[in-house]
Amino acid sequence: MRIAIDAMGTDAAPAVEVEGALRALTELEDDIELVLVGDPDLIRAELARHDASESPRLGIRPATDRVRAGDSPATVLRKKPDSSIAVGLRLHKEGEVDAFVSAGSTGAVMAASLFLLRPLPGVERPSVGTFFPTRGAPTLLLDAGTNVDCKPRHLVQFAHLGRVYMADVLGLDSPRIGLLNIGEEPEKGNELTQETHRLLAADPGLNFVGNIEGREILEGTCDVLVADGFAGNVLLKFYESAAHFVLGLVAAELAKSGEARPLDSVARLLDYSEYGGAPLLGVNGVTIICHGGSPPKAIRNAIRVAAQAVRSDMVADMAAELDSDRKTPEHP
Amino acid sequence: MRIAIDAMGTDAAPAVEVEGALRALTELEDDIELVLVGDPDLIRAELARHDASESPRLGIRPATDRVRAGDSPATVLRKKPDSSIAVGLRLHKEGEVDAFVSAGSTGAVMAASLFLLRPLPGVERPSVGTFFPTRGAPTLLLDAGTNVDCKPRHLVQFAHLGRVYMADVLGLDSPRIGLLNIGEEPEKGNELTQETHRLLAADPGLNFVGNIEGREILEGTCDVLVADGFAGNVLLKFYESAAHFVLGLVAAELAKSGEARPLDSVARLLDYSEYGGAPLLGVNGVTIICHGGSPPKAIRNAIRVAAQAVRSDMVADMAAELDSDRKTPEHP
Repeated sequence: MRIAIDAMGTDAAPAVEVEGALRALTELEDDIELVLVGDPDLIRAELARHDASESPRLGIRPATDRVRAGDSPATVLRKKPDSSIAVGLRLHKEGEVDAFVSAGSTGAVMAASLFLLRPLPGVERPSVGTFFPTRGAPTLLLDAGTNVDCKPRHLVQFAHLGRVYMADVLGLDSPRIGLLNIGEEPEKGNELTQETHRLLAADPGLNFVGNIEGREILEGTCDVLVADGFAGNVLLKFYESAAHFVLGLVAAELAKSGEARPLDSVARLLDYSEYGGAPLLGVNGVTIICHGGSPPKAIRNAIRVAAQAVRSDMVADMAAELDSDRKTPEHP
Repeated sequence: MRIAIDAMGTDAAPAVEVEGALRALTELEDDIELVLVGDPDLIRAELARHDASESPRLGIRPATDRVRAGDSPATVLRKKPDSSIAVGLRLHKEGEVDAFVSAGSTGAVMAASLFLLRPLPGVERPSVGTFFPTRGAPTLLLDAGTNVDCKPRHLVQFAHLGRVYMADVLGLDSPRIGLLNIGEEPEKGNELTQETHRLLAADPGLNFVGNIEGREILEGTCDVLVADGFAGNVLLKFYESAAHFVLGLVAAELAKSGEARPLDSVARLLDYSEYGGAPLLGVNGVTIICHGGSPPKAIRNAIRVAAQAVRSDMVADMAAELDSDRKTPEHP
């Protein structure tokens, strides 16, 4: 299989992307071929620093432009058709590669993926999922901020997208689906979550474990946490800052008694950017989005995730699961 | 002034309430008189343990019944008219006391307060606010879970209720009002927060500091954080669990190197239950709700807060601020 890597996405591009790609080639399965998309001179210079060069498993596809933080996501394809994001996603659309990994602007990668790859039939709202650490395995939060105003049926679609992802890419037998809510009982919550609870509970294709309260989220009681993108994004951003806030309090407390212990290992455990990227789910293709501050390991992990999505036929499985009787009109 | 204390509210009632009341009498201003509402025999026994008894500043009002966790909040007044919550709030309604403090069921105290004290004119949704710790002073979150489906005008009312509370009870000159949102720019967010931003920004009576993102919440950049009760409650419950989760990780890390340091001081700092209770804002009276697991100090703090609300004429100030041209019909 072939995977295109946006070489111009991170804050330290293309050094991080090149190192991540090289690590993927040596550490992951042999059937993976990579295409680095970006400025050929810069990419070759980085390869040279690692005593590496182009090879049958490592190609370069020139892209003369680059999406910047200030660019409007909606107009990237039109205004920057030669950007690494546009070139890489066209490779995917045209079947030259099987997946696309980028640490560029999330909005731009999303918008370009939606336009070029198109949503799968039965998916009204493709969704970017994000993993966060818990006492158990990391939980996939869907939606993490893409879709801020949702109907109950959208949340049900998120549940199915998440189910297939966790089954295909992480190999879970029967992924547990939870609904972010306030209170455990089915009748708790706002209009959106009350109706969503009813739909999820009645869906025979889902292992629905019920409402997940704020205080339960970190217990690892579900594999996929379904939420509207507003609540999901509030939660995600707050998690990061709360973790750093508490670590800061602890460091200050330890310093009082003359100790100054590095808590880096804890901070790293809490850093969800290392988990292998955020998958864009519900489009006719595999797009994995990494944080702009990603280290090489995160790029390598995202490549591993993309490869597993291709290998497991994730997109075909999602298409089969979503384009079914679940799209019935009685869902509000 | 006189303040009624529900003596039967905490998990350790009435011991905690009696000790908290006695501490309030010795530590707070002399003009405060307290009425303990509950089982007279149990209350007298607790007083005796502290070598105290009834006095002109410390009365007992018998209440033969008690609201239990399983009781439906909506029917408490009808089914348990002799409960300490019902008796205490009737004292307030009839003007025998100026405020009511309870650590009983939040739902029951809310419902009974709404029915007996009534919402102020111009307040469609009275709201329970909760303080949480930040790098700066604690922030008041409004709404913290009472009103899960809100319109923009409800959030504007929360902003005014919070403004008056922080000005009157905490003595802030010009409380900073923030809107919980995803993204800093005015146009970010869902339909609710976009429209609410417009209304708050156009309101000359508010010191609106703009959108507050999840990652900013703990910076202490606002004094009142306005949110719909769903997002607010998710945030609040998640904060508590995230803090404990991170503390647990740190403790495990320290234990690895043979250290086992108590992090109790940090845990205590993060415990918002010690902050003096959650005020019910927007009714024609002063109701302060404490956590069921409150220690005596929290009861004492809630009494201090209630006294300050009475002393500052908070209810009259809220009535004057809310029952104004802000109730204009063009607000959606």
